[in-house]
Amino acid sequence: MSGNSIGVIFKVTTWGESHGPATGAVVEGCPPGIDLAEEDIQKWLNRRRPGRIASSSPRKEDDVVKILSGTFQGKTTGTPISLIIENANVDSSAYEDIKDIFRPGHGDFTYFKKYGIRDYRGGGRASGRETAARVAAGAVAQKIISRVGVEVIAYTKALGGIVINRERDVAKTISHEDIAVNRLLCPDADAARVMEEKLEEAKRSGDSLGGIVEIIVRGCPPGLGEPVFDKMDADLAKALMSIGTVKGVEIGAGFKVAEMTGSQANDPMTPGGFLSNHAGGILAGITTGQDIVLRVAAKPIPSIAKVQQTIDVRGNRAELSIKGRHDVSAIPRIIPVCEAMVTIVLADHLLRQKTI
Amino acid sequence: MSGNSIGVIFKVTTWGESHGPATGAVVEGCPPGIDLAEEDIQKWLNRRRPGRIASSSPRKEDDVVKILSGTFQGKTTGTPISLIIENANVDSSAYEDIKDIFRPGHGDFTYFKKYGIRDYRGGGRASGRETAARVAAGAVAQKIISRVGVEVIAYTKALGGIVINRERDVAKTISHEDIAVNRLLCPDADAARVMEEKLEEAKRSGDSLGGIVEIIVRGCPPGLGEPVFDKMDADLAKALMSIGTVKGVEIGAGFKVAEMTGSQANDPMTPGGFLSNHAGGILAGITTGQDIVLRVAAKPIPSIAKVQQTIDVRGNRAELSIKGRHDVSAIPRIIPVCEAMVTIVLADHLLRQKTI
Amino acid sequence: MSGNSIGVIFKVTTWGESHGPATGAVVEGCPPGIDLAEEDIQKWLNRRRPGRIASSSPRKEDDVVKILSGTFQGKTTGTPISLIIENANVDSSAYEDIKDIFRPGHGDFTYFKKYGIRDYRGGGRASGRETAARVAAGAVAQKIISRVGVEVIAYTKALGGIVINRERDVAKTISHEDIAVNRLLCPDADAARVMEEKLEEAKRSGDSLGGIVEIIVRGCPPGLGEPVFDKMDADLAKALMSIGTVKGVEIGAGFKVAEMTGSQANDPMTPGGFLSNHAGGILAGITTGQDIVLRVAAKPIPSIAKVQQTIDVRGNRAELSIKGRHDVSAIPRIIPVCEAMVTIVLADHLLRQKTI
Amino acid sequence: MSGNSIGVIFKVTTWGESHGPATGAVVEGCPPGIDLAEEDIQKWLNRRRPGRIASSSPRKEDDVVKILSGTFQGKTTGTPISLIIENANVDSSAYEDIKDIFRPGHGDFTYFKKYGIRDYRGGGRASGRETAARVAAGAVAQKIISRVGVEVIAYTKALGGIVINRERDVAKTISHEDIAVNRLLCPDADAARVMEEKLEEAKRSGDSLGGIVEIIVRGCPPGLGEPVFDKMDADLAKALMSIGTVKGVEIGAGFKVAEMTGSQANDPMTPGGFLSNHAGGILAGITTGQDIVLRVAAKPIPSIAKVQQTIDVRGNRAELSIKGRHDVSAIPRIIPVCEAMVTIVLADHLLRQKTI
Repeated sequence: MSGNSIGVIFKVTTWGESHGPATGAVVEGCPPGIDLAEEDIQKWLNRRRPGRIASSSPRKEDDVVKILSGTFQGKTTGTPISLIIENANVDSSAYEDIKDIFRPGHGDFTYFKKYGIRDYRGGGRASGRETAARVAAGAVAQKIISRVGVEVIAYTKALGGIVINRERDVAKTISHEDIAVNRLLCPDADAARVMEEKLEEAKRSGDSLGGIVEIIVRGCPPGLGEPVFDKMDADLAKALMSIGTVKGVEIGAGFKVAEMTGSQANDPMTPGGFLSNHAGGILAGITTGQDIVLRVAAKPIPSIAKVQQTIDVRGNRAELSIKGRHDVSAIPRIIPVCEAMVTIVLADHLLRQKTI
Repeated sequence: MSGNSIGVIFKVTTWGESHGPATGAVVEGCPPGIDLAEEDIQKWLNRRRPGRIASSSPRKEDDVVKILSGTFQGKTTGTPISLIIENANVDSSAYEDIKDIFRPGHGDFTYFKKYGIRDYRGGGRASGRETAARVAAGAVAQKIISRVGVEVIAYTKALGGIVINRERDVAKTISHEDIAVNRLLCPDADAARVMEEKLEEAKRSGDSLGGIVEIIVRGCPPGLGEPVFDKMDADLAKALMSIGTVKGVEIGAGFKVAEMTGSQANDPMTPGGFLSNHAGGILAGITTGQDIVLRVAAKPIPSIAKVQQTIDVRGNRAELSIKGRHDVSAIPRIIPVCEAMVTIVLADHLLRQKTI
Repeated sequence: MSGNSIGVIFKVTTWGESHGPATGAVVEGCPPGIDLAEEDIQKWLNRRRPGRIASSSPRKEDDVVKILSGTFQGKTTGTPISLIIENANVDSSAYEDIKDIFRPGHGDFTYFKKYGIRDYRGGGRASGRETAARVAAGAVAQKIISRVGVEVIAYTKALGGIVINRERDVAKTISHEDIAVNRLLCPDADAARVMEEKLEEAKRSGDSLGGIVEIIVRGCPPGLGEPVFDKMDADLAKALMSIGTVKGVEIGAGFKVAEMTGSQANDPMTPGGFLSNHAGGILAGITTGQDIVLRVAAKPIPSIAKVQQTIDVRGNRAELSIKGRHDVSAIPRIIPVCEAMVTIVLADHLLRQKTI
Repeated sequence: MSGNSIGVIFKVTTWGESHGPATGAVVEGCPPGIDLAEEDIQKWLNRRRPGRIASSSPRKEDDVVKILSGTFQGKTTGTPISLIIENANVDSSAYEDIKDIFRPGHGDFTYFKKYGIRDYRGGGRASGRETAARVAAGAVAQKIISRVGVEVIAYTKALGGIVINRERDVAKTISHEDIAVNRLLCPDADAARVMEEKLEEAKRSGDSLGGIVEIIVRGCPPGLGEPVFDKMDADLAKALMSIGTVKGVEIGAGFKVAEMTGSQANDPMTPGGFLSNHAGGILAGITTGQDIVLRVAAKPIPSIAKVQQTIDVRGNRAELSIKGRHDVSAIPRIIPVCEAMVTIVLADHLLRQKTI
């Protein structure tokens, strides 16, 4: 069974290849009567547009979303919402040269092994382009969670080894405005400057950079998450790990818990609330009402100009230097994607909780 | 919708509370004609038995599994396999004292917020006891993956801040025998000795310890995983994060990718195979045929003797010192649980791939 | 993927073979805080007990249900409810003789073709015994629907060609008490007497009889059902057709609509309500608030004493006369099963509607 | 949870309203490497086109399908296939007059009760127009089942009370060519002539007619169907009952089993095969390898010119005479829809069986 859907009540199914006619999502389970116009979705899509930001490919994508169903007179009707984004400016000729070659770090090899066939144009289904549909669907999810005051904010925590210097407090107070101060969506302006230098340097050397994104969920009510397998942290981990470049997910204190004692890690409770948040807002897979705090590690973009060893579809040795306009880092372009995935999971669990 | 099932084709549904009459699992989708006897499952269950290992609670659990359906004359029939483990030696009286108090770091508070009711005896459904059903189901999954030569091995990588010193090579050669050399299932005997001292020290001070488990999958064929949401890494992350104590999951180079460049992170391909495995055996959510390498961070056991601040169900301030026989660390008891979860995901994806 | 579950929010998974140690169901999605004791379930199970009723096998089944999880202090907790019914009085020796023979009208041949193996003892998983688990799960569902005043009543409408003579009015007023007046659960006492004679006659001649069950749902709120595939009528049809002996399902006017005109079939609406109910309480797959009216056709029990032509597992010609204690008709034993299936579907859709 | 998908491995999700910009389907689980071009789908869509056939509305629908994803160089790739059909010639002005009125026999009332809002233009989501997406998806399913020699043929069995006179033999030999002899897709030319007269008469009197469609599945291998809930007959019943006008589904002898004895109903087996097919090709929910035989009852089209009593959204009394171009009977337009639904179920179960 193919895995193109996420969510149980609020369910998103994406479809589309990088260089096909269009990409889209079918969004099911959105309650009726919610204001929803194309602009509401376009606003979120624009945040992931390349060219807008330093580390991104200069290719101009006109990601214009259209709503094909599920709304009437500006409101959702309860029926499935079909969203479509046409693939403009598609030129697959650049991929003709590498159609028989497996690019290291990409899905070329594994797609071929799995399906015995691959759409080699721009990565096909494995392309980051598919995330446009996720962001569009996330915009619908955002309508649902904002009704109960939940907000999701993601930002650059590290890039190319440079880590921001505001860790402790930022989660509690940061806003989308704080992040929008620079192209890297990084709340620490000093760090952002050094990150930009690192990006420039990587670009010059035909290389790429990895980084860390932190995601904060604010205003989440307690009680969300479905033990024992669809726990909130389990579903968030899956949603985030399903983003192409993500190689690790942690919640709250994350991997640091390995070095803590119970008396350090447990968050004391008082009549006034929790005194710390090492749990990252989730206990036993259910939200506590504190901020949910997540971090993901994004690997460097695998498409690099530097010469790499590889093989072709017949197993022969090959060398590869990937030309063309490619992002130097997945950050900050995956930031709205991370937000979308977390938002989709929250919308789903908010609706699931209504059945209890 | 409640989340008591995992898997699509090979599906496991668990049920049961810590101090109820029994715990169990219904295992669906196991192909017919596979040899399966109670001993085959019991063998895996015995690995998670407390008391067997240093860091564990001395409570004697007689985890005896019975097969109630789905087999005939020692072979699976294709119908659902119902597994039951009766809860022996159940004494809930110790929990009467804390039935109105929320234990920090536990699911007491969140279960109450979610359901408006909780079974306070031994943690109820949130108890680690539920993982017995997972391990039993994992034993069935193991039968499926071993038919095609896939093997899952997990071991203690770190405990109480002590990290093993064999990182680089261990994944390629380690065996269940290498791990079974000590009670901590740690392949580094020197590290294991220091870990034992740490455990003893934590016990004396009424505290508990966290750690890291590494899981290796060997012999996995390429092509498993279902883009774009049910990717192999996404499903593994969910399965592992659904274990109570896990706060982080990483694959291959994991969080280290954040500091790598593309030319470092990409695994070069040659006619003889990949030259490195930073991807951890998964590209674009599909297995490459290399070893799958995963790590999880386990938080310290939240039940500690040290006095903690907390509140009761009415929101009043309370103090708590948890008496009784509790594990000092989730490690090594979660090791067979990690293996079971990974095995279940692999069995499911092996069967899913058959439909392609 | 195996199909042992029904329902999305309120989900029932059954397991167990006729002559295995036990049969059971895992019931997920039941909201917390509902009174639920074993007696509540036992009461419904007793209604399908053989021997109680004329057309049934004299085998004494002690269907004693136990609740193994999901309740605490007499109330549901929101966690999965595991129900178990041990198979008492199991003697498989009678099936040794026919273990290589396919009984006509049974699942012997198809199970063997599907799985390449079959548990021949008493029909294995295909046995009507599996419906005990459905009835037990239906008793939990009944708790949910009765909270909002919904009631499900099924009764014998026809048996052996004898049709009851109260068609028009019965649906509006009939009660469980009206039905319990005779062993056939038939509200028409005169018809019931002739049916009994037919049963006696069939028994004497070593044959069996088919019939029709009508199911009425009273008090169902409008708005339930999920277009376009999980429509209320579609889900009810599936649930009822999944009962072994059912070969047809119809709703409202059913097959008679084929001979009606639109002006006859449409139910006029007035400020005081609908003036007729040819729709059977469902329009466009969603409940109208009128009574839901369903009918199913039950085939004659295929186990008959009369000599039948058949083949064995090697494809050789064989003759078969089935001895032993078998029901003469599926009616009335499937009546509580029909009620259970309809009740489960309603409970599921009531909870699904809460997410809208 | 909304119910816009059908199938587990081969999964179809439809979206779209009658008078929205487009209607479509996302088809998941189609294996890679299958030839699939737009013409292959268009061919099936053309069969349900109105105007082509006597009983249909003269409205000209240009149902032109486009494939937006999931194929590359004329072959399926294993990724989701997105199909879109733009709604041409949409004029909603005719619906302005009745936007506050509930049409009897339609989903107007129930959609409003369910969602609190409705897209009144042409029935919105409840329109028969949604079935175009089903037929398009069915064309993909047809590619899968035809690879193993399975064929689905549906035809008019009865219309306006006129029943065809070839019942006994037709199932075994009938072909799509036999059916295409007249506009009603009725293999009995004499009956078809009388049906045409009945249609003409109904049209003149501003009324509409119901009928019966029979569906034959030929070449189906034994072993398909997933007990105990996703039985082949259960899934077929659901799929067919999910078609708007269907009020009854029966399999094999169907409702006639109610009057049969076991010795009549059981299909004797011989080394040369079954001697009859009262079971309709399914035993215990699993295919036997015989033809699958199904019948559905289609209610008369509820949109009639005759004056009807009804109410408006405020509950006030209203009278309604539906003007405009409406079908006189759902037959023969639902014939390709019935074929599509059965084909989708078969494709799904063929793939499900591969996991066993």
